[in-house]
Amino acid sequence: MNCKPIGIIHTPYKKYAPYQPVESEKEDFYVDVDPVYYEGLAELSRFRYIYLLFFMDQVKKPLSMQVEPPWADGKIVGLFASRSPVRPNPVGLSIVQLLKVEGNRLYTTGLDALDGTPLLDIKPYIKELDSKPDANYGWLDDMDDKEHLLLHIRGIPHDD
Amino acid sequence: MNCKPIGIIHTPYKKYAPYQPVESEKEDFYVDVDPVYYEGLAELSRFRYIYLLFFMDQVKKPLSMQVEPPWADGKIVGLFASRSPVRPNPVGLSIVQLLKVEGNRLYTTGLDALDGTPLLDIKPYIKELDSKPDANYGWLDDMDDKEHLLLHIRGIPHDD
Repeated sequence: MNCKPIGIIHTPYKKYAPYQPVESEKEDFYVDVDPVYYEGLAELSRFRYIYLLFFMDQVKKPLSMQVEPPWADGKIVGLFASRSPVRPNPVGLSIVQLLKVEGNRLYTTGLDALDGTPLLDIKPYIKELDSKPDANYGWLDDMDDKEHLLLHIRGIPHDD
Repeated sequence: MNCKPIGIIHTPYKKYAPYQPVESEKEDFYVDVDPVYYEGLAELSRFRYIYLLFFMDQVKKPLSMQVEPPWADGKIVGLFASRSPVRPNPVGLSIVQLLKVEGNRLYTTGLDALDGTPLLDIKPYIKELDSKPDANYGWLDDMDDKEHLLLHIRGIPHDD
């Protein structure tokens, strides 16, 4: 099962990325789609949100089935109950707002990938299908300080 | 960029899958995760919704950058503005409810993949991160009969 890059993701993150994206007003986050796929972008700009799938091949930590999510106060959970980038198949998934399309360049809101990460796919985020108001927080509900943890997970700067 | 199966998806769909999942009360949809990853499932059952990523290697149609989504009244859109399974990297993404976990078997709600599809990843769907109440419908808003189209996209049976 082989994948190939269809573009390159550009972010300010050279060595490490936040676990979840930080919102940014600058044009720090953009995706250059390979020009051979240019026609495939038609009508994409109509969507407020899109999914980006990418290959996190720069993450070099060892794979473990048990992970200790950052800021989760030492709690250990299964890898698949986490959003850790160290996975058997290092396919990352981010939901971003599509701010602007210029040719084959897509400007987006913040995105938790290293600069130069290969893009695998773009899919439209369709409200009816993808937004689940009845979703929950899983094991995060156990955390005494869930609201604070969510600030970290969302990457929102705050006084610790 | 190589991917490997971490499990197998089982569905009632042997030759074609609906474009988006049909909800089902039966135990028709389940994922058998390779036992070597069993420990990685710890705490997953706490989540109401999960993402499944899978490799749609049984889809044999030719790749095209312009697609005519089913039931969209002949409208042509770019591939990346669609959820067509025929993509440069055939990585499928479904959001499903996790109904029950029995050992390394996950029972889920309806899922738009062919029986036997290789599983690539499982990620928790976290309300705060993944549910976007302000998402829109993109080009679907142009459709005269959008509500009807959404029934088709969601795979809800109805009188045509």
